[in-house]
Amino acid sequence: MTQHDASGPLGIVAGGGTLPASVADAAIAQGRDVYIVAIGSSADEGLRAYSHTWLEWVDIGSIFNKLRDQGCQEVVIVGGVDRPDLSDIKLSLRALKNVPLVISLVKSGDGDLLGSIVKAFEDRGFIVRGADDIAPELVMTVGPLGRVKPDDSHQFDIDRAFGVIEALGPFDVGQAVIVSQGHVLAIEAAEGTDAILKRCAGLETHQRKTAKKPSGVLVKRPKPGQERRIDLPTIGPETVRNAAKARLAGIALSAGAVLVAERETVIAEADKHGLFISGFDLDEGQ
Amino acid sequence: MTQHDASGPLGIVAGGGTLPASVADAAIAQGRDVYIVAIGSSADEGLRAYSHTWLEWVDIGSIFNKLRDQGCQEVVIVGGVDRPDLSDIKLSLRALKNVPLVISLVKSGDGDLLGSIVKAFEDRGFIVRGADDIAPELVMTVGPLGRVKPDDSHQFDIDRAFGVIEALGPFDVGQAVIVSQGHVLAIEAAEGTDAILKRCAGLETHQRKTAKKPSGVLVKRPKPGQERRIDLPTIGPETVRNAAKARLAGIALSAGAVLVAERETVIAEADKHGLFISGFDLDEGQ
Repeated sequence: MTQHDASGPLGIVAGGGTLPASVADAAIAQGRDVYIVAIGSSADEGLRAYSHTWLEWVDIGSIFNKLRDQGCQEVVIVGGVDRPDLSDIKLSLRALKNVPLVISLVKSGDGDLLGSIVKAFEDRGFIVRGADDIAPELVMTVGPLGRVKPDDSHQFDIDRAFGVIEALGPFDVGQAVIVSQGHVLAIEAAEGTDAILKRCAGLETHQRKTAKKPSGVLVKRPKPGQERRIDLPTIGPETVRNAAKARLAGIALSAGAVLVAERETVIAEADKHGLFISGFDLDEGQ
Repeated sequence: MTQHDASGPLGIVAGGGTLPASVADAAIAQGRDVYIVAIGSSADEGLRAYSHTWLEWVDIGSIFNKLRDQGCQEVVIVGGVDRPDLSDIKLSLRALKNVPLVISLVKSGDGDLLGSIVKAFEDRGFIVRGADDIAPELVMTVGPLGRVKPDDSHQFDIDRAFGVIEALGPFDVGQAVIVSQGHVLAIEAAEGTDAILKRCAGLETHQRKTAKKPSGVLVKRPKPGQERRIDLPTIGPETVRNAAKARLAGIALSAGAVLVAERETVIAEADKHGLFISGFDLDEGQ
């Protein structure tokens, strides 16, 4: 964990899910104040318990002043957000001053988008830190979480799925893939991990439907070359429940490069459903 | 079009859709008799108009004798089929004699599966021909179908989508990809092209929902290295209608390597919805 010579509270730009609160708690446990800027409709209502403000997309340009006003020098950006709706923004007079930034964000792919966001903060003098840097306890470790372990029969599916994400690197897409018995069942693009799990649960054209035991693996890893200070792949209890509904045997993650939200609940759900969750050292170069 | 020195009717192993009937009509127009083996619940009821038999998956092993009994030496395999349900087959005594073949089919990935099917016919002395060989008029040509043409603004999305399919070649997955403004929205794995179009139509997290004009392209091409005599990528009127609902600007296809079912209706639908459908020469080596 790098310590920057930064004063003031840690600014947390918060999208959806429980990770922003976990990062806030970690910073507070380190004796640090936090200030949360919750984004749009994605952010969790629980964040109101912290020092915070709520920003709609149309006001996104004021985010820098809000953080400066609170004396934040360091910023962490965590939790998923829905992409802004360009047409809505166009219609809003208030948003006019932010149009160049917003358009550049909307026009780019995910990876470009993330890079643009980090750069927008850095250009204005902020230090952008990764959630994994503030709260290393959220980061997936090597080996299994919980009681169930993958066996040799899962290794081919795991390797194949990691390989698919690797191959898609140049196209700035895909942090999650499902492979069963060598067959690639689903590749995540714009729809999100829960969506591919639900799709897999509904696959009727395959022997999965009536198979006697669960098979197949959900694999998550960052896109090769992606900006790692923002949007690391994440799993949480809902991921495990959806994987169980899809009758998968387990979840394989790139150790050191995937965040686990609500780890205790994740482990309890995995044990309950008999799924493995295991971290693999892919040497992704942090 | 290669002419083999084969006697007897052309055997048509028919999955779903209208392509099997189109292939049958093309052969009949060439003065040839046909004999159709319709597979399971996928095949179209319209095939009953031709000389035919209907086979359930459990009886798949008898397909070779059925074709031999009719004097077929040449076979074409066309139209999508649902994968057999291994558990059902296991339970059927009738299927026991076919178990080794069926298990080898079910255990393999798509590409392996297709190769295994062709080999199973060839090992038994049949000549397997491609639907494109029997009915070249079904094959996508270079340039636009219908009135609308892609313009320069679409070329980046088209190139990117063709590139994604290329990159996925080693993993035996993906004949269809949707890209909009450089952003990969969906990659087809086990779910089928109509499913990715419907998913794209439902993407609410993106500016697509309220965008003023359609954008994005559906691209289809064979998986690199796939067995070309079976399961060439296909579009039909429903593909065009679903692309319109997904508010795509058009459809780009690998010329010479994609089949177009019901071409006249496809063109009419494309013109009606203002979509382009265009074939690109990718030099896929036939």
